[in-house]
Amino acid sequence: MSKGFFVTVEGGEGAGKTTVLDRIEAELVSKGLDVIRTREPGGIRISEQIRTVILDVTHTEMDSRTEALLYAAARRQHLVEKVIPALKQGSIVLCDRFLDSSLAYQGYARGIGFDEVKAINEFAIEGYLPDLTLFFDVDPQIGLSRIQSDEDREVNRLDQEKMEFHERVREGYQKVIEVYPERIKVINANQDVETVYKEAMNEINHFVGRIL
Amino acid sequence: MSKGFFVTVEGGEGAGKTTVLDRIEAELVSKGLDVIRTREPGGIRISEQIRTVILDVTHTEMDSRTEALLYAAARRQHLVEKVIPALKQGSIVLCDRFLDSSLAYQGYARGIGFDEVKAINEFAIEGYLPDLTLFFDVDPQIGLSRIQSDEDREVNRLDQEKMEFHERVREGYQKVIEVYPERIKVINANQDVETVYKEAMNEINHFVGRIL
Repeated sequence: MSKGFFVTVEGGEGAGKTTVLDRIEAELVSKGLDVIRTREPGGIRISEQIRTVILDVTHTEMDSRTEALLYAAARRQHLVEKVIPALKQGSIVLCDRFLDSSLAYQGYARGIGFDEVKAINEFAIEGYLPDLTLFFDVDPQIGLSRIQSDEDREVNRLDQEKMEFHERVREGYQKVIEVYPERIKVINANQDVETVYKEAMNEINHFVGRIL
Repeated sequence: MSKGFFVTVEGGEGAGKTTVLDRIEAELVSKGLDVIRTREPGGIRISEQIRTVILDVTHTEMDSRTEALLYAAARRQHLVEKVIPALKQGSIVLCDRFLDSSLAYQGYARGIGFDEVKAINEFAIEGYLPDLTLFFDVDPQIGLSRIQSDEDREVNRLDQEKMEFHERVREGYQKVIEVYPERIKVINANQDVETVYKEAMNEINHFVGRIL
């Protein structure tokens, strides 16, 4: 289908995705590999405009299915304009969140329904699944405490609600893994960043070595 | 599911939908019925914003599946914010185009695939199908000639392309009717507006009389 490798990274809040992706990107570039680092909406102007509609804080009336369709639309455009052309040129595409986030967050945690959110995303991606997905599995207590210590703020009612929501997100990811056990590699993200990075890099090296 | 009646009107360009809907609306209102006349995006601000993204003439890079997902998103929000509340209040909702337009235009004529466009729209409408759909079936030659005589312009290459496209749209509607033979009533829209109006009104009276 393409010469490149499509790698996505998934996980709840505070799992360390950004920090570890920075290091993975630097390591792959230092090896002389052609790497495209991206995340939706990825600077694609149509996807950015869709994102503006989704994230407008005044849009409190937005229905959750409207939101799910908009995410799928933004994903589609980012995929066809940026990801697929990069893969065709042989690049390693590192994408922060993709399909599995919609399944875990919207399909499961928001309660729309796993199979239903999967169906609209299959329409969007037309079989273009990642070659490898790294799921950074973090205990929500640990993930949220990392975020909170960053921002130096106390736990409030909203954080408690978020905690329950993040527990559901984690359960949602477990359902995603049951559907795609071969593609998704689980990494214990409760560990320190250095260990998480090494385990993630091992998975990528194993994968790239298997292909090259 | 609701007290009201949900009526949609479908058809190709030049079928006379707007003119006939004006008269149907006036007739129902004159009988003292509570009528909501609408069309997507229907003044719903989220749907209007989505429509702006779809219709931006500079968005030549827009993928047809992105467009289909955006139409489904705008449809969802218009449905939950305007159509369903009106039906729950017992109104007759007259909607110019709905699901069947996406199936005929995008699923069939644009070649995405009928079942695939149906799937994302089922996600959007969650079973909220119209109670009655009037399909104004017009020969594309006649429909386009009506539009052209309106604008007093000659046939050019683009119109010829449009003709082929409109032939496919008409074929697409035939496929839609095969899927929903009970819901959709076909009206020969090659006839004069007065006759089309009378046949449409007969269908609505028959339908409303059957329910009331």
